Amino acid sequence: MTLPRTKTTFAPPVMEARRWLDGVTHPVDRPLLNVSQAAPVDPPPAPLREAMAQIVLTNPDAHLYGPVLGLPALRSEIAKRWTQAYGGTVGADQVAITSGCNQAFAAAIATLCADGDEVIFPVPYYFNHRMWLDMSGVSTVPLQTGAGMVPDADAAAQLITPRTRAIALVSPNNPCGVEYPAHVLRAFLELARSRGIALIVDETYRDFDSRTGAPHDLFADPAWDDTLIQLYSFSKAYRLTGHRVGAIIASAARLAEVEKFLDTVTICPNQLGQHAALWGMQNLDDWLAGERLEILDRRAAITDNFGQLAAKGWELLGCGAYFAYLKHPFTMSSTDLAQRLVRDASVLVLPGTMFMPDDLAGGETQIRVAFANIDRAGVETLFNRLANLPY
Amino acid sequence: MTLPRTKTTFAPPVMEARRWLDGVTHPVDRPLLNVSQAAPVDPPPAPLREAMAQIVLTNPDAHLYGPVLGLPALRSEIAKRWTQAYGGTVGADQVAITSGCNQAFAAAIATLCADGDEVIFPVPYYFNHRMWLDMSGVSTVPLQTGAGMVPDADAAAQLITPRTRAIALVSPNNPCGVEYPAHVLRAFLELARSRGIALIVDETYRDFDSRTGAPHDLFADPAWDDTLIQLYSFSKAYRLTGHRVGAIIASAARLAEVEKFLDTVTICPNQLGQHAALWGMQNLDDWLAGERLEILDRRAAITDNFGQLAAKGWELLGCGAYFAYLKHPFTMSSTDLAQRLVRDASVLVLPGTMFMPDDLAGGETQIRVAFANIDRAGVETLFNRLANLPY
Repeated sequence: MTLPRTKTTFAPPVMEARRWLDGVTHPVDRPLLNVSQAAPVDPPPAPLREAMAQIVLTNPDAHLYGPVLGLPALRSEIAKRWTQAYGGTVGADQVAITSGCNQAFAAAIATLCADGDEVIFPVPYYFNHRMWLDMSGVSTVPLQTGAGMVPDADAAAQLITPRTRAIALVSPNNPCGVEYPAHVLRAFLELARSRGIALIVDETYRDFDSRTGAPHDLFADPAWDDTLIQLYSFSKAYRLTGHRVGAIIASAARLAEVEKFLDTVTICPNQLGQHAALWGMQNLDDWLAGERLEILDRRAAITDNFGQLAAKGWELLGCGAYFAYLKHPFTMSSTDLAQRLVRDASVLVLPGTMFMPDDLAGGETQIRVAFANIDRAGVETLFNRLANLPY
Repeated sequence: MTLPRTKTTFAPPVMEARRWLDGVTHPVDRPLLNVSQAAPVDPPPAPLREAMAQIVLTNPDAHLYGPVLGLPALRSEIAKRWTQAYGGTVGADQVAITSGCNQAFAAAIATLCADGDEVIFPVPYYFNHRMWLDMSGVSTVPLQTGAGMVPDADAAAQLITPRTRAIALVSPNNPCGVEYPAHVLRAFLELARSRGIALIVDETYRDFDSRTGAPHDLFADPAWDDTLIQLYSFSKAYRLTGHRVGAIIASAARLAEVEKFLDTVTICPNQLGQHAALWGMQNLDDWLAGERLEILDRRAAITDNFGQLAAKGWELLGCGAYFAYLKHPFTMSSTDLAQRLVRDASVLVLPGTMFMPDDLAGGETQIRVAFANIDRAGVETLFNRLANLPY
């Protein structure tokens, strides 16, 4: 008997890590530092919450079904701003709203793949992507990254087979934090196009990129939508995690296929979250700019303070957006280390083993630190604890 | 090349039907009667909207990620009320919250089926269920319904093969409105159990069942969760369609599998919708009882007024909850009829052909009327128009 789809993949890693906290008490002077998940811990700013309350009270449509592909005004706003930001042309009919960015990925894969197909992914990868490929009967083909954790298009070219349907990239990267250079993304687009496969670029963390201006010129290519599928999330920018709003930017023809998936899985994205995302785009530019600077300062705190960890044999493999990706100096596997860190240092991180296939080496020496929720002082505390482990 | 998943199914029927409205203008004295979709046209009652606005303003958690399987308080409330309503025992760990009831079905299938498996469905069926099975590589095995549109467990038994993983029922039924008798559901549970397959019962419309008391005794079976998977929606009861909140009631072991699917597709159900559903359950019993009576009156309006249609050769095949399922007297297919009704009678219904496989006879003589949004006067207007068609 063939396994049902969910049996072909593993349990959600974030949930598993959370269970490591069960029954562990932390010293009063050493509270838990939870750097396991890339999620805001605060609600949206007060003006947005007030706007949402008004919408709840005064806009009946915010409570009813809406179009499967999302609120037309939100699709238009994204199209307008993407056109400005990326120096290309994105139309409202090339934008669809999803119930979070995970769903955008799931929908994209459903339009591309059947059982037995393959998708190439740099490792380490975002585990939820891997889980969806597993459940879709699609093989995740790992692409090793070299120095700086940046994938190489020529190396990817060697992995393409007749069953390859897409290459999927996340930039800024989860889990590594690395911002892929524009020329790298361009090389991947050209590779994908030349081989007739799709290039998926997940830019969930784009609002916290340290570079100013467009992070790539892919949308400036007039024919971008023959190959490119971009994914985005409103969870981080406006702290709308709990409202589940993401987006997929692709050809109108592909979005007609996406519509089948979204209609069948959720009918439509929730309306209030979409109204909130629209309000945020129209009113919170300055606020978001400040948030970005704060995240960039936390990132700087990582590099500024890394010396004390480097002195103990740690390496900083990648750092940016919400994440630092570290190589630890111990002989134990990161899976063991992560669980010991809860008890010995009141620190919750995810081990590198969660971000790659079991049969691939590397992850056992790595951990991901989602630093967005700890400020400069928190980074110092974290590093003090890591620098003084009794191993 | 194997077709990607979305290419294995059809475009969303509700969207297709909506396109029939494009470019059609209706006489001033004959406004459009849209009875195509089972969706409230009004927002939740004012007290619930006010409660939601308060939650938006004062509860930070309502904006953040929550547990994949839903808000613990909502899971507990459902468990408590189900235990009371069905005369059995349902624990909070046997309840998960989903982003609408379509997602509950998708998740259930993902825990049951692989490519090439089969699920038995009475026809006519709910087309979104069919679409998900198509995209999952699962065959929909049609079970013909006889008199009264009620399926027969003995007939279903003949359709079970080694690849059958489940029988799926919707009661009260979409599209037929029929309330399946308790003994029928019991017979299906026993059949499914004896053959080691699951029984999925979608009770999206349970709050508008005309019967008082429990509609079936399946939960009273102490071992119910070895076979039964029940689905529910908060969209209709509290008019929360736009907030996407549904539920799946199944064994804790199955919900651990469901967790993988939900985590990967949406991370968690939206938080505000869950708080709203909880508030509704705790505060709107009397209001919901009134809503039910109003829907039952609309149902009575269908049967009270059907004489004039019967005189013209129409038949009422099923009626209940939100739906009347009609057999029309014309020689044209319901697909043509539905499109002509828009122009000739300013009425939008869905044709029976949308609710069954192309190669199955019957649908071309049938239409579905989603009457929940038209009151007694609206039913009279609808029937006057249908009784006076120029065909």
